[in-house]
Amino acid sequence: MEGIRVIEVKKRVFEGNERRAADLRGALRRQGTFLLNLMSSPGSGKTTTIMRTLERLDRGIRVGVLEADLDSDVDARTVATLGVPVVQLHSGGMCHLDAEMAGRGLEALGMGGFDLVILENIGNLICTAQFDTGASMNAMIISVPEGDDKPLKYPPMFAAVDAVVVNKVDAAEHFDFDLDRFRERLATLSPKAAVFPLSAKTGEGVQPWVDWLSARVAAWKR
Amino acid sequence: MEGIRVIEVKKRVFEGNERRAADLRGALRRQGTFLLNLMSSPGSGKTTTIMRTLERLDRGIRVGVLEADLDSDVDARTVATLGVPVVQLHSGGMCHLDAEMAGRGLEALGMGGFDLVILENIGNLICTAQFDTGASMNAMIISVPEGDDKPLKYPPMFAAVDAVVVNKVDAAEHFDFDLDRFRERLATLSPKAAVFPLSAKTGEGVQPWVDWLSARVAAWKR
Repeated sequence: MEGIRVIEVKKRVFEGNERRAADLRGALRRQGTFLLNLMSSPGSGKTTTIMRTLERLDRGIRVGVLEADLDSDVDARTVATLGVPVVQLHSGGMCHLDAEMAGRGLEALGMGGFDLVILENIGNLICTAQFDTGASMNAMIISVPEGDDKPLKYPPMFAAVDAVVVNKVDAAEHFDFDLDRFRERLATLSPKAAVFPLSAKTGEGVQPWVDWLSARVAAWKR
Repeated sequence: MEGIRVIEVKKRVFEGNERRAADLRGALRRQGTFLLNLMSSPGSGKTTTIMRTLERLDRGIRVGVLEADLDSDVDARTVATLGVPVVQLHSGGMCHLDAEMAGRGLEALGMGGFDLVILENIGNLICTAQFDTGASMNAMIISVPEGDDKPLKYPPMFAAVDAVVVNKVDAAEHFDFDLDRFRERLATLSPKAAVFPLSAKTGEGVQPWVDWLSARVAAWKR
């Protein structure tokens, strides 16, 4: 690249909790509990999307929520208003969750009593993607105001997900988010990832996402 | 909090590069170079805000830019179109910069030849606030679509800054961002932080931010 010097500053190997994650995933499979690890930037609408999802899920699906946060419990309070069991996880300043933390949350929630547990991860596009939580599936939310270039900037996150919710499409006219361009960029990292453009605010597009998630939850038990 | 169990998952002491940061800050002061550490979530508009800032800065201010990214150089390419010296820092997957990385970037840029160096930190509201880069000042961008509740969720970030740019005010009518509520929440963490509502897209509100920054740069030399 002409005129710009590039320095490789530092590399750190993020050592694994891989075995613990695999153990947790195995236990979840045996118990028929689908753990959805939901990641995003701060302010992309994780909590609102979870609310809309909970409202539309079939009543027969027993669902619980793990809310991860640095230190607060505002999101857990919000979700609890729907009468859904919620456990708040405090990371104590850490920017990610790992399989041990997810396991402790599930234990507190009462592992085994749920068909679906949604883990709202910490608002972060970097650290969260680097640690396997033991989840059955990784999904993320990108919101329209963040821009369609994010796969270029945070490739490990977009490579780690099976589904991407594109939130805040109701505000699309005010931002230069090109959905086709986004899909192309995502496809280079996660060719099979499903994409769900929706507005958690207005409810537009939420149902296809809920249907798809429900099918994945059902398939997990087979 | 009734009905929600809270678990303190883990605490990690983020050990310091405090001495290195203090050394770097001292060297910058002696050379009359003001280092602005600019932080935000992914997609808040750091690069666009830097572009608008560079365009409006007095020509007499010798300015350089350090662009930090996981692995890409899209932002550095954008900034370089203005003819401003840019160095791209690759964190190799790390979610923050520290004083050593900042120092290496300044060295590559040619420390001493600049009145102002803007460090565009990695898009992250957690890790970046935990490491002193040696900067003369910390500032952050929060964008209207992210919501006014972010100080509740990411208190260490909002406690670490001297200035907050509230970006994307041109889209304010589509989001429930209450500027007064935001100011109140910020004030509990950073009572003296200056707030600059602006739109890097339209240019609205950019000048007061540039004037304020310019005054800080001038004061640094005294």
